Amino acid sequence: MEERPPTRRSAPKSGAGAPSPASEDSKNRHRHILETAARVICEKGYEGAGVQDIAEACGLTKAGLYHHIRSKEHLLLEIMNYGMDVFEEQVLSQVIPIVDPVERLQTCMDKNIQLVTHGWSKEVTIILHEHATLTGEAAAQINARKKRYVRFLEDSFAEAIRAGRIRPVNAKVAAFAFLGMVLWIYKWFRPEGAVPADKLAQEMKHLLFDGLVVPERKAAPRRPRSSRK
Amino acid sequence: MEERPPTRRSAPKSGAGAPSPASEDSKNRHRHILETAARVICEKGYEGAGVQDIAEACGLTKAGLYHHIRSKEHLLLEIMNYGMDVFEEQVLSQVIPIVDPVERLQTCMDKNIQLVTHGWSKEVTIILHEHATLTGEAAAQINARKKRYVRFLEDSFAEAIRAGRIRPVNAKVAAFAFLGMVLWIYKWFRPEGAVPADKLAQEMKHLLFDGLVVPERKAAPRRPRSSRK
Repeated sequence: MEERPPTRRSAPKSGAGAPSPASEDSKNRHRHILETAARVICEKGYEGAGVQDIAEACGLTKAGLYHHIRSKEHLLLEIMNYGMDVFEEQVLSQVIPIVDPVERLQTCMDKNIQLVTHGWSKEVTIILHEHATLTGEAAAQINARKKRYVRFLEDSFAEAIRAGRIRPVNAKVAAFAFLGMVLWIYKWFRPEGAVPADKLAQEMKHLLFDGLVVPERKAAPRRPRSSRK
Repeated sequence: MEERPPTRRSAPKSGAGAPSPASEDSKNRHRHILETAARVICEKGYEGAGVQDIAEACGLTKAGLYHHIRSKEHLLLEIMNYGMDVFEEQVLSQVIPIVDPVERLQTCMDKNIQLVTHGWSKEVTIILHEHATLTGEAAAQINARKKRYVRFLEDSFAEAIRAGRIRPVNAKVAAFAFLGMVLWIYKWFRPEGAVPADKLAQEMKHLLFDGLVVPERKAAPRRPRSSRK
């Protein structure tokens, strides 16, 4: 937060009130089950991971696990919705209020890279982006949430172009290029690797935005102050 | 040098001689098995896809399939190696000989996008990039082939920076950004969608390279081109 904090259109949403310790406990317990199930499914594959395996990894009996989940398919849907919840809470809802479209996109890249590099378990990301096992209503639900992000990016790029803030590019391609740069990270990033997470975010922003952003009016200093239009 | 058609360091490798029709037939048959198996594995998951299912999809008996494959795990390795073979043949070996690093990277992006959008079955891509089921020697083999591509990209970016052809950026991050932009395409691209494949390649290149490439010395534009058409 070196300069002024981003200008917000409205305050970020927060819960209606402080949750009770009991409901926090149960939420954490549920989250633990989802994270553990994600790990088992990634290890053994969705078909290979039995409800028994997931229960054992959670330290529960099979009956105990069924107390928390409806079915294996529904558990997969829950893991994906959990992934999208965390993403929307930590990234999307934080940046939607930013007025300037370029600042909005840059902050979004920052926060999404933070999330991908250490915000949650890699397994949740893998399930969110690689699992095509969901069908029908459930698949449609997750796809709609993902499409909301794509539309947000596309609209922000289009707005930045209209405002003359970035070079005219194809906003849809820019949105998917942004997504590819950011989401591919979970496939290669290692916390102990040559590029630490904060440097990575910085470099990715340089790479995409330094070449896109139109320098502020170069002619401005020489223009007569009382310029008529 | 920039304006000349790609100068090649050596002719692209071709086979030692024309293959006999019989060996072509057997190669095509084998390729068909790999493509079909990839589709079945994507549909049912690796654990869920039995050798029997794969055999049926190929129009073979189980015994007939075992005539062509060693084991299910080896089949998975073969699908990945096949994906890498096609990639190296159609992309990497075509662009390695290009002398100018920026032209090399741009042509590489073009060819890789062609491959991702219509060069092979989506299922081979999915298996190549999403399957972590291989272990030990087999996993190491595929990883080494993938790393070769990353290194090629990183070296090309580093060379372009040293030559003053592009802005100084982190070459490793640039390589992974390039990869993310290009490889994420299989996740969203639809041939009937709003952005056709050739336009997509054009736009991705604009997006990444127009902002990276250092304009030639200001006096240069009037310089007569050596190979004007």
